[in-house]
Amino acid sequence: MITPVLLCGGSGTRLWPLSRKSYPKQFTNLIGNETLFQAAARRVAAPGFAAPVVVTGPDFRFIVTEQLQAVGIDPGTILIEPSARNTAPAILAAALHVAASDPGALLLVLPSDQVVPDAAAFRAAVAAGEDAARAGAIVTFGIAPTRPETGYGWMEVPPDTVEGQGAPVDLLRFVEKPDADRAAEMLATGRFLWNAGIFLASVATMVAAFEAHAPDLLAPVREAVAGARADLGFLRLAEAPWGACPEISIDFAVMEHATNRKAVPFAAGWSDLGDWASVHRESRPDAAGVVTHGPVTAIGCRDSLLRSESEGLELVGIGLSGVLAVAMPDAVLVADAARAQEVKEAVAALKRKGARQAETLPRDFRPWGWFETLVQGERFQVKRIVVHPGHALSLQSHVHRAEHWIVVSGTARVTVDGAERLVSENQSVYIPLGARHRMENPGKVDMVLIEVQTGSYLGEDDIIRYEDRYARGQGAKG
Amino acid sequence: MITPVLLCGGSGTRLWPLSRKSYPKQFTNLIGNETLFQAAARRVAAPGFAAPVVVTGPDFRFIVTEQLQAVGIDPGTILIEPSARNTAPAILAAALHVAASDPGALLLVLPSDQVVPDAAAFRAAVAAGEDAARAGAIVTFGIAPTRPETGYGWMEVPPDTVEGQGAPVDLLRFVEKPDADRAAEMLATGRFLWNAGIFLASVATMVAAFEAHAPDLLAPVREAVAGARADLGFLRLAEAPWGACPEISIDFAVMEHATNRKAVPFAAGWSDLGDWASVHRESRPDAAGVVTHGPVTAIGCRDSLLRSESEGLELVGIGLSGVLAVAMPDAVLVADAARAQEVKEAVAALKRKGARQAETLPRDFRPWGWFETLVQGERFQVKRIVVHPGHALSLQSHVHRAEHWIVVSGTARVTVDGAERLVSENQSVYIPLGARHRMENPGKVDMVLIEVQTGSYLGEDDIIRYEDRYARGQGAKG
Repeated sequence: MITPVLLCGGSGTRLWPLSRKSYPKQFTNLIGNETLFQAAARRVAAPGFAAPVVVTGPDFRFIVTEQLQAVGIDPGTILIEPSARNTAPAILAAALHVAASDPGALLLVLPSDQVVPDAAAFRAAVAAGEDAARAGAIVTFGIAPTRPETGYGWMEVPPDTVEGQGAPVDLLRFVEKPDADRAAEMLATGRFLWNAGIFLASVATMVAAFEAHAPDLLAPVREAVAGARADLGFLRLAEAPWGACPEISIDFAVMEHATNRKAVPFAAGWSDLGDWASVHRESRPDAAGVVTHGPVTAIGCRDSLLRSESEGLELVGIGLSGVLAVAMPDAVLVADAARAQEVKEAVAALKRKGARQAETLPRDFRPWGWFETLVQGERFQVKRIVVHPGHALSLQSHVHRAEHWIVVSGTARVTVDGAERLVSENQSVYIPLGARHRMENPGKVDMVLIEVQTGSYLGEDDIIRYEDRYARGQGAKG
Repeated sequence: MITPVLLCGGSGTRLWPLSRKSYPKQFTNLIGNETLFQAAARRVAAPGFAAPVVVTGPDFRFIVTEQLQAVGIDPGTILIEPSARNTAPAILAAALHVAASDPGALLLVLPSDQVVPDAAAFRAAVAAGEDAARAGAIVTFGIAPTRPETGYGWMEVPPDTVEGQGAPVDLLRFVEKPDADRAAEMLATGRFLWNAGIFLASVATMVAAFEAHAPDLLAPVREAVAGARADLGFLRLAEAPWGACPEISIDFAVMEHATNRKAVPFAAGWSDLGDWASVHRESRPDAAGVVTHGPVTAIGCRDSLLRSESEGLELVGIGLSGVLAVAMPDAVLVADAARAQEVKEAVAALKRKGARQAETLPRDFRPWGWFETLVQGERFQVKRIVVHPGHALSLQSHVHRAEHWIVVSGTARVTVDGAERLVSENQSVYIPLGARHRMENPGKVDMVLIEVQTGSYLGEDDIIRYEDRYARGQGAKG
């Protein structure tokens, strides 16, 4: 059995506005009908694979469980990184965690934000690397390059092996993201693969590699794993030692120094969807080079991506050429396709000017479900709140606002100053300023509630928590 | 005194998504801090001008009164056209209406959707045409052309008069919208002006011109004016005869045939903002040719228009060149600037596919204020409703839905099955299915209310009206 390690803590900005810090790209439907994370999990939910270890951040833990549940996959462990420290500490933590119960385990480390259309071919490549990994190699999976890409790291392999039949070959050296000329040269030689960040190795090999090449990481990560605390089905790495880990990638920390490394060439299709130009490329453009998604009307366009991310938002493109347009109700991107990388700078500019769209979506995901602000006025705010079956918000009170709750779907159990009642569709409840209140969903379907807040201050941090089944503190998020 | 006639019934589609059939461009802030209609009304609110006659459609009548009130202008009359019949019937109706009380009046007919930056220069041009008009001419105001524009009609005048000092000159002939070569030729001759659709004539001259050149219009328009019905300060033209009028422009009906016509050249700046490319041109682009409006971040763009029409909507443009981008929360346009005219076809395509964005805005303007849908679910809908001081919705009931009302600003007087009460900020009312109910705003400031509807059918047409101060029928709008 191979234990997949799904790395799921990333939060790039180049796919803004769809991908935001609060809800990064691995959780979005960029291609196809499932999210990139769901597709990655399903790619390794097959005979020969154990339940996956997912490594993610505290803000994403409930998104992970919801998305796995939706595709019917039980995670082995969800490891929570108290903060993002890049890939090396995450992989080492997973290896140490798995080693504790299964010292002979083979780990398949894979990012959860990539597209691999042919999952069977991918599993065949993994199988091709298995013997080498069991024999003590760190096996990477190198993508046979199809263009002079400057956005990836490259890896050199011996001559005449790139187009090989998938057997492991020697990995001679890593090349950092090249410039265009260097990328074209490497492509022409036929001796280079793209580094996809996918690794297969035994836990013993992996830990030994850290011992040899990154010994300073071992102590804090060991301590963080040893001190990990089980919390509602998650395993939360100990905060203090974790925070002491240097932020470093597995390539820098280990792979560039290791000698027992191999590469399995993979040519069946792969993309990391690093920017909107690559989403365009991977989305099967029509004969005119146009990709549309959602309610879009394209007139006389070519070589363009037109995405509306909302059913209620009509996007019209006229006469566009080489344009990427992505529309959401709170943010719209229109970019020259050749400058897709600059979305990163745009997000930084939005952050500098204090626009909340830089990092957060209108919809806010919480342990119990999600909510969104429908309208915000001077002394009022209206929210839609969705509580999943069996979940509950904390018992709380507010100093500055009163709330009206109207249940519009399902049934709520509502507590106000100690009195409990069931509230069903079309019934309402008033929560006076200062009252201790809680809403729960005791039913079997989502409960949807409209909340109308009135008061002089309506910030999320006006909250006193008396009891919270998700172990959140005062003033912490909802 | 000159009586301005503001033509305000138009509803072009080339400025979609900002301008829609339900709220056309003359009522929007395309340039500057007031709407085009407000700017037009203020242009002729000056010594020497009587209160204006506004000719508009039934859907726009309350927008007209609200916008005039906001700039402190009292209309003389607001003539309601039961349907849009193009400019000739509208101008004749205004002339006949004014003639009834003041047979010697001088009319200045002007479209309400144009930009004229220098109002004083415009009034000076009008003054320059006054003697000729009083002497029996129909005086038009011709714009000194600045480019080979194919979107306008042109007018030929004698040599060396285009750059004249504003005195009336003979108007030799009209030229329909030309092709590019013809437009360039006309521009080069210096003997042509653009037809701006602005006319000065006495009511007697105007009526006589219709008698001579469009006698078939006279009978139905006379009948529509004679049968006009006063209604809440509006004068509603009689529907049956009005509907019998041919749809025809003043140019075709009268101007092309008239011999007593003159033109006053006008060179102080003018635009009809016929499409987004002209909005770009008139909005003072920066050195790179870029115009932004609203929360916009433009990185490395040139010769582009980037407009976000909502404070809560961030628009980002990267590396754009010659692109028009207009973003609203429910609709986004991204177009090649050279193809701005095709917005019209895009709107037609949206209409064919049944997208409500083709013609209506999220905000729905009614006699008493406005409302917008905040969220629509399977069996619920949430609206924000704003009622202006002193106004009231009709006394009504619904067969399929119950409603919860929460007042979030101001005070409402609410009637439910005969019982009346005052509801103030942070108070709520429940309207059971079938109950006869009404909301009024008895206060001095806008009343804002959140309405949560639940039920099996939530269409606007589930309404039984018992009493309505705005004289609307069963199933009619709000």
